[in-house]
Amino acid sequence: MKFIFKPVGFIRTQNREISGTPIQSSYAKDYTGKAEIMLEYKAGLKDLEGFSHIILIYVFDRHRQGDYKLHVKPFMDDKKHGVFATRAPKRPNNIGISIVRVEQIKNNMIFFSGADMLDNTPILDIKPYVPEFDSDAEFRTGWLEGRINLSEKRKADERF
Amino acid sequence: MKFIFKPVGFIRTQNREISGTPIQSSYAKDYTGKAEIMLEYKAGLKDLEGFSHIILIYVFDRHRQGDYKLHVKPFMDDKKHGVFATRAPKRPNNIGISIVRVEQIKNNMIFFSGADMLDNTPILDIKPYVPEFDSDAEFRTGWLEGRINLSEKRKADERF
Repeated sequence: MKFIFKPVGFIRTQNREISGTPIQSSYAKDYTGKAEIMLEYKAGLKDLEGFSHIILIYVFDRHRQGDYKLHVKPFMDDKKHGVFATRAPKRPNNIGISIVRVEQIKNNMIFFSGADMLDNTPILDIKPYVPEFDSDAEFRTGWLEGRINLSEKRKADERF
Repeated sequence: MKFIFKPVGFIRTQNREISGTPIQSSYAKDYTGKAEIMLEYKAGLKDLEGFSHIILIYVFDRHRQGDYKLHVKPFMDDKKHGVFATRAPKRPNNIGISIVRVEQIKNNMIFFSGADMLDNTPILDIKPYVPEFDSDAEFRTGWLEGRINLSEKRKADERF
Protein backbone atom coordinates (compact mmCIF):
# COMPACT_ATOMS: atom_id res chain seq x y z
CA MET A 1 0.00 0.00 0.00
CA LYS A 2 1.35 3.39 -0.94
CA PHE A 3 0.08 6.92 -1.47
CA ILE A 4 1.27 9.37 -4.08
CA PHE A 5 1.04 13.10 -3.44
CA LYS A 6 1.92 16.02 -5.67
CA PRO A 7 2.89 19.48 -4.43
CA VAL A 8 0.18 22.17 -4.54
CA GLY A 9 2.82 24.88 -4.25
CA PHE A 10 6.19 25.82 -2.78
CA ILE A 11 7.35 27.76 0.26
CA ARG A 12 9.83 30.56 -0.38
CA THR A 13 11.99 31.54 2.60
CA GLN A 14 15.40 33.00 3.31
CA ASN A 15 16.55 29.71 4.82
CA ARG A 16 18.92 28.35 2.18
CA GLU A 17 20.69 25.75 4.33
CA ILE A 18 19.62 23.37 7.09
CA SER A 19 22.26 24.69 9.47
CA GLY A 20 21.02 27.96 11.01
CA THR A 21 17.37 27.47 10.05
CA PRO A 22 14.98 27.95 13.00
CA ILE A 23 13.85 24.55 14.25
CA GLN A 24 10.26 25.59 15.00
CA SER A 25 7.94 28.28 13.64
CA SER A 26 7.42 29.57 17.19
CA TYR A 27 11.18 30.33 17.21
CA ALA A 28 10.93 32.01 13.81
CA LYS A 29 8.49 34.85 14.47
CA ASP A 30 10.84 37.31 12.72
CA TYR A 31 11.35 35.01 9.73
CA THR A 32 8.88 35.75 6.97
CA GLY A 33 8.04 33.41 4.13
CA LYS A 34 5.73 33.09 1.19
CA ALA A 35 3.61 30.08 0.26
CA GLU A 36 3.19 30.21 -3.49
CA ILE A 37 0.24 28.09 -4.57
CA MET A 38 0.12 26.80 -8.14
CA LEU A 39 -2.41 28.74 -10.19
CA GLU A 40 -4.58 25.66 -10.75
CA TYR A 41 -5.25 25.51 -6.97
CA LYS A 42 -5.60 29.26 -6.36
CA ALA A 43 -9.41 29.14 -6.04
CA GLY A 44 -8.95 26.88 -3.01
CA LEU A 45 -7.61 29.87 -1.04
CA LYS A 46 -11.02 31.63 -0.97
CA ASP A 47 -11.87 32.89 2.56
CA LEU A 48 -8.54 31.77 3.99
CA GLU A 49 -7.67 35.42 4.75
CA GLY A 50 -10.19 35.35 7.63
CA PHE A 51 -7.91 33.03 9.60
CA SER A 52 -4.96 34.45 11.52
CA HIS A 53 -3.03 31.16 11.41
CA ILE A 54 -2.72 28.26 9.00
CA ILE A 55 -1.28 24.77 9.19
CA LEU A 56 1.26 24.14 6.43
CA ILE A 57 1.87 20.47 5.64
CA TYR A 58 4.99 19.98 3.57
CA VAL A 59 7.79 17.60 2.62
CA PHE A 60 11.25 17.68 4.19
CA ASP A 61 12.50 17.19 0.65
CA ARG A 62 16.18 17.78 1.37
CA HIS A 63 16.12 14.40 3.13
CA ARG A 64 15.87 11.33 1.00
CA GLN A 65 12.82 9.17 1.80
CA GLY A 66 14.11 6.16 3.73
CA ASP A 67 17.02 8.07 5.30
CA TYR A 68 15.94 7.91 8.95
CA LYS A 69 16.66 6.16 12.23
CA LEU A 70 14.03 5.04 14.74
CA HIS A 71 16.08 6.45 17.64
CA VAL A 72 17.32 10.00 17.11
CA LYS A 73 19.06 12.78 18.98
CA PRO A 74 16.76 15.76 18.29
CA PHE A 75 18.02 19.35 18.21
CA MET A 76 16.66 20.00 21.70
CA ASP A 77 18.32 17.16 23.58
CA ASP A 78 21.51 15.13 23.64
CA LYS A 79 19.69 11.94 24.53
CA LYS A 80 18.11 9.63 22.01
CA HIS A 81 14.33 9.42 21.69
CA GLY A 82 11.97 7.51 19.44
CA VAL A 83 11.60 9.42 16.17
CA PHE A 84 7.80 9.68 16.69
CA ALA A 85 8.47 11.39 20.05
CA THR A 86 10.45 14.11 18.22
CA ARG A 87 9.88 16.61 15.44
CA ALA A 88 13.11 15.59 13.69
CA PRO A 89 12.97 15.97 9.89
CA LYS A 90 14.32 12.51 9.02
CA ARG A 91 11.26 10.28 9.58
CA PRO A 92 9.73 7.16 8.00
CA ASN A 93 7.55 9.56 5.96
CA ASN A 94 9.40 12.86 5.74
CA ILE A 95 6.37 15.09 6.30
CA GLY A 96 6.59 18.34 8.28
CA ILE A 97 3.94 20.62 9.71
CA SER A 98 4.17 24.21 10.89
CA ILE A 99 1.54 26.54 12.27
CA VAL A 100 2.32 30.00 10.90
CA ARG A 101 0.76 33.45 11.14
CA VAL A 102 -0.81 34.81 7.96
CA GLU A 103 0.31 38.36 7.23
CA GLN A 104 -1.36 38.84 3.85
CA ILE A 105 -2.86 36.84 1.00
CA LYS A 106 -2.41 38.25 -2.48
CA ASN A 107 -3.43 36.32 -5.58
CA ASN A 108 -1.88 32.87 -5.24
CA MET A 109 0.55 33.90 -2.50
CA ILE A 110 0.26 33.62 1.27
CA PHE A 111 2.75 35.85 3.07
CA PHE A 112 3.40 34.56 6.58
CA SER A 113 5.67 34.82 9.59
CA GLY A 114 7.11 31.83 11.40
CA ALA A 115 9.13 30.54 8.46
CA ASP A 116 11.06 27.57 9.85
CA MET A 117 11.27 25.72 6.55
CA LEU A 118 13.90 25.69 3.84
CA ASP A 119 13.50 27.70 0.65
CA ASN A 120 11.57 25.86 -2.09
CA THR A 121 9.95 23.35 0.27
CA PRO A 122 7.07 21.56 -1.52
CA ILE A 123 3.62 22.10 0.06
CA LEU A 124 1.23 19.15 0.32
CA ASP A 125 -1.70 20.84 2.05
CA ILE A 126 -2.90 24.00 3.76
CA LYS A 127 -5.53 23.93 6.50
CA PRO A 128 -7.01 26.71 8.63
CA TYR A 129 -5.77 26.58 12.22
CA VAL A 130 -8.70 26.45 14.63
CA PRO A 131 -7.74 26.49 18.32
CA GLU A 132 -11.03 24.79 19.26
CA PHE A 133 -10.08 21.84 17.03
CA ASP A 134 -6.33 21.85 17.44
CA SER A 135 -5.79 22.59 21.09
CA ASP A 136 -6.91 21.29 24.47
CA ALA A 137 -6.81 22.36 28.11
CA GLU A 138 -3.78 20.73 29.69
CA PHE A 139 -0.66 19.20 28.27
CA ARG A 140 2.38 17.21 29.22
CA THR A 141 5.41 17.41 26.95
CA GLY A 142 7.60 14.53 28.14
CA TRP A 143 11.32 14.82 27.51
CA LEU A 144 10.86 18.33 26.10
CA GLU A 145 9.59 19.67 29.42
CA GLY A 146 12.06 22.26 30.70
CA ARG A 147 14.04 22.25 27.46
CA ILE A 148 11.64 24.38 25.46
CA ASN A 149 13.05 27.67 26.64
CA LEU A 150 16.70 26.80 26.06
CA SER A 151 17.30 29.51 23.50
CA GLU A 152 20.62 28.11 22.24
CA LYS A 153 18.74 25.14 20.81
CA ARG A 154 16.46 27.10 18.52
CA LYS A 155 18.38 26.78 15.29
CA ALA A 156 19.39 23.69 13.43
CA ASP A 157 22.94 22.44 13.63
CA GLU A 158 24.70 19.80 11.58
CA ARG A 159 22.96 16.75 12.97
CA PHE A 160 20.42 16.23 10.21
CA MET B 1 7.34 16.03 -9.00
CA LYS B 2 5.62 13.52 -6.72
CA PHE B 3 6.13 11.98 -3.32
CA ILE B 4 5.39 8.40 -2.33
CA PHE B 5 4.48 7.57 1.26
CA LYS B 6 3.76 4.23 2.87
CA PRO B 7 1.64 3.76 6.00
CA VAL B 8 3.50 3.25 9.28
CA GLY B 9 0.35 1.83 10.87
CA PHE B 10 -3.43 1.96 10.98
CA ILE B 11 -6.00 3.64 13.21
CA ARG B 12 -8.70 1.39 14.66
CA THR B 13 -11.92 3.14 15.67
CA GLN B 14 -15.61 2.39 16.00
CA ASN B 15 -16.40 4.74 13.12
CA ARG B 16 -17.30 2.37 10.30
CA GLU B 17 -19.04 4.90 8.03
CA ILE B 18 -18.48 8.52 7.12
CA SER B 19 -22.00 9.50 8.11
CA GLY B 20 -22.19 9.86 11.91
CA THR B 21 -18.41 10.07 12.44
CA PRO B 22 -17.38 13.07 14.57
CA ILE B 23 -15.97 15.78 12.31
CA GLN B 24 -13.23 16.90 14.71
CA SER B 25 -11.27 15.20 17.48
CA SER B 26 -12.35 17.96 19.87
CA TYR B 27 -15.94 16.79 19.26
CA ALA B 28 -14.93 13.17 19.82
CA LYS B 29 -13.62 13.21 23.38
CA ASP B 30 -15.73 10.13 24.24
CA TYR B 31 -14.62 8.26 21.11
CA THR B 32 -11.59 6.10 21.80
CA GLY B 33 -9.30 4.70 19.15
CA LYS B 34 -6.10 2.76 18.80
CA ALA B 35 -3.15 3.62 16.56
CA GLU B 36 -1.50 0.32 15.70
CA ILE B 37 2.05 0.90 14.52
CA MET B 38 3.70 -1.73 12.35
CA LEU B 39 6.24 -3.72 14.33
CA GLU B 40 9.14 -2.52 12.19
CA TYR B 41 8.48 1.07 13.40
CA LYS B 42 7.69 0.23 17.04
CA ALA B 43 11.07 1.46 18.35
CA GLY B 44 10.14 4.93 17.08
CA LEU B 45 7.54 5.21 19.87
CA LYS B 46 10.19 5.36 22.64
CA ASP B 47 9.43 8.23 25.11
CA LEU B 48 6.17 9.15 23.39
CA GLU B 49 4.26 8.18 26.55
CA GLY B 50 5.55 11.36 28.24
CA PHE B 51 3.36 13.49 25.98
CA SER B 52 -0.31 13.95 26.80
CA HIS B 53 -1.24 14.66 23.18
CA ILE B 54 0.00 13.59 19.76
CA ILE B 55 -0.55 14.79 16.22
CA LEU B 56 -1.75 11.98 13.95
CA ILE B 57 -1.15 12.57 10.25
CA TYR B 58 -3.15 10.18 8.11
CA VAL B 59 -4.80 9.60 4.73
CA PHE B 60 -8.50 10.16 4.07
CA ASP B 61 -8.30 6.90 2.14
CA ARG B 62 -12.05 6.44 1.64
CA HIS B 63 -11.80 9.35 -0.83
CA ARG B 64 -10.08 8.72 -4.12
CA GLN B 65 -7.08 10.98 -4.74
CA GLY B 66 -8.21 13.57 -7.30
CA ASP B 67 -11.85 13.55 -6.13
CA TYR B 68 -12.10 17.11 -4.80
CA LYS B 69 -13.47 20.53 -5.63
CA LEU B 70 -11.71 23.83 -4.98
CA HIS B 71 -14.89 25.38 -3.56
CA VAL B 72 -16.67 23.21 -0.97
CA LYS B 73 -19.55 23.34 1.47
CA PRO B 74 -17.93 22.14 4.70
CA PHE B 75 -19.88 20.36 7.45
CA MET B 76 -20.03 23.52 9.52
CA ASP B 77 -21.52 25.91 6.99
CA ASP B 78 -23.94 25.98 4.10
CA LYS B 79 -21.86 28.47 2.15
CA LYS B 80 -19.00 27.51 -0.11
CA HIS B 81 -15.41 28.22 0.91
CA GLY B 82 -12.04 27.51 -0.64
CA VAL B 83 -11.02 23.95 0.21
CA PHE B 84 -7.81 25.23 1.89
CA ALA B 85 -10.00 27.37 4.21
CA THR B 86 -11.81 24.21 5.39
CA ARG B 87 -10.90 20.90 6.97
CA ALA B 88 -12.99 18.98 4.42
CA PRO B 89 -11.63 15.47 3.68
CA LYS B 90 -11.73 15.76 -0.13
CA ARG B 91 -8.63 17.83 -0.89
CA PRO B 92 -5.96 18.02 -3.60
CA ASN B 93 -3.84 15.78 -1.34
CA ASN B 94 -6.23 13.86 0.89
CA ILE B 95 -4.18 14.20 4.10
CA GLY B 96 -5.83 14.64 7.51
CA ILE B 97 -4.47 15.65 10.88
CA SER B 98 -5.94 15.23 14.34
CA ILE B 99 -4.59 16.17 17.73
CA VAL B 100 -5.64 13.42 20.13
CA ARG B 101 -5.13 12.63 23.81
CA VAL B 102 -2.92 9.66 24.61
CA GLU B 103 -4.53 7.35 27.16
CA GLN B 104 -1.96 4.56 27.16
CA ILE B 105 0.88 3.16 25.03
CA LYS B 106 1.33 -0.60 25.09
CA ASN B 107 3.79 -2.36 22.80
CA ASN B 108 3.07 -1.06 19.30
CA MET B 109 -0.33 0.40 20.20
CA ILE B 110 -1.30 3.91 21.18
CA PHE B 111 -4.72 4.05 22.85
CA PHE B 112 -6.21 7.53 22.53
CA SER B 113 -9.39 9.56 22.87
CA GLY B 114 -10.61 12.00 20.26
CA ALA B 115 -11.12 9.41 17.52
CA ASP B 116 -12.64 11.36 14.63
CA MET B 117 -11.25 9.09 11.92
CA LEU B 118 -12.69 6.08 10.18
CA ASP B 119 -11.72 2.55 11.15
CA ASN B 120 -8.57 1.29 9.36
CA THR B 121 -7.33 4.76 8.40
CA PRO B 122 -3.65 4.55 7.27
CA ILE B 123 -1.20 6.56 9.41
CA LEU B 124 1.58 8.51 7.69
CA ASP B 125 3.25 10.08 10.72
CA ILE B 126 2.99 10.65 14.46
CA LYS B 127 4.45 13.73 16.13
CA PRO B 128 4.39 14.89 19.74
CA TYR B 129 2.05 17.85 20.27
CA VAL B 130 3.91 20.71 21.90
CA PRO B 131 1.76 23.76 22.72
CA GLU B 132 4.82 26.03 22.65
CA PHE B 133 5.43 24.99 19.02
CA ASP B 134 1.87 24.46 17.86
CA SER B 135 -0.04 27.29 19.42
CA ASP B 136 0.12 31.08 19.65
CA ALA B 137 -1.48 33.88 21.64
CA GLU B 138 -4.40 35.20 19.63
CA PHE B 139 -6.37 33.80 16.77
CA ARG B 140 -9.01 34.69 14.23
CA THR B 141 -11.01 31.87 12.67
CA GLY B 142 -12.73 33.52 9.72
CA TRP B 143 -15.97 31.97 8.51
CA LEU B 144 -15.90 29.45 11.36
CA GLU B 145 -16.21 32.19 13.99
CA GLY B 146 -19.51 31.73 15.84
CA ARG B 147 -20.17 28.37 14.16
CA ILE B 148 -17.80 26.34 16.29
CA ASN B 149 -20.28 25.75 19.10
CA LEU B 150 -23.19 24.73 16.89
CA SER B 151 -23.50 21.25 18.33
CA GLU B 152 -25.75 19.90 15.56
CA LYS B 153 -22.84 20.22 13.12
CA ARG B 154 -20.44 17.95 14.98
CA LYS B 155 -20.98 14.76 13.06
CA ALA B 156 -20.51 14.08 9.38
CA ASP B 157 -23.52 13.91 7.12
CA GLU B 158 -23.75 12.70 3.54
CA ARG B 159 -21.96 15.57 1.86
CA PHE B 160 -18.54 13.90 1.42
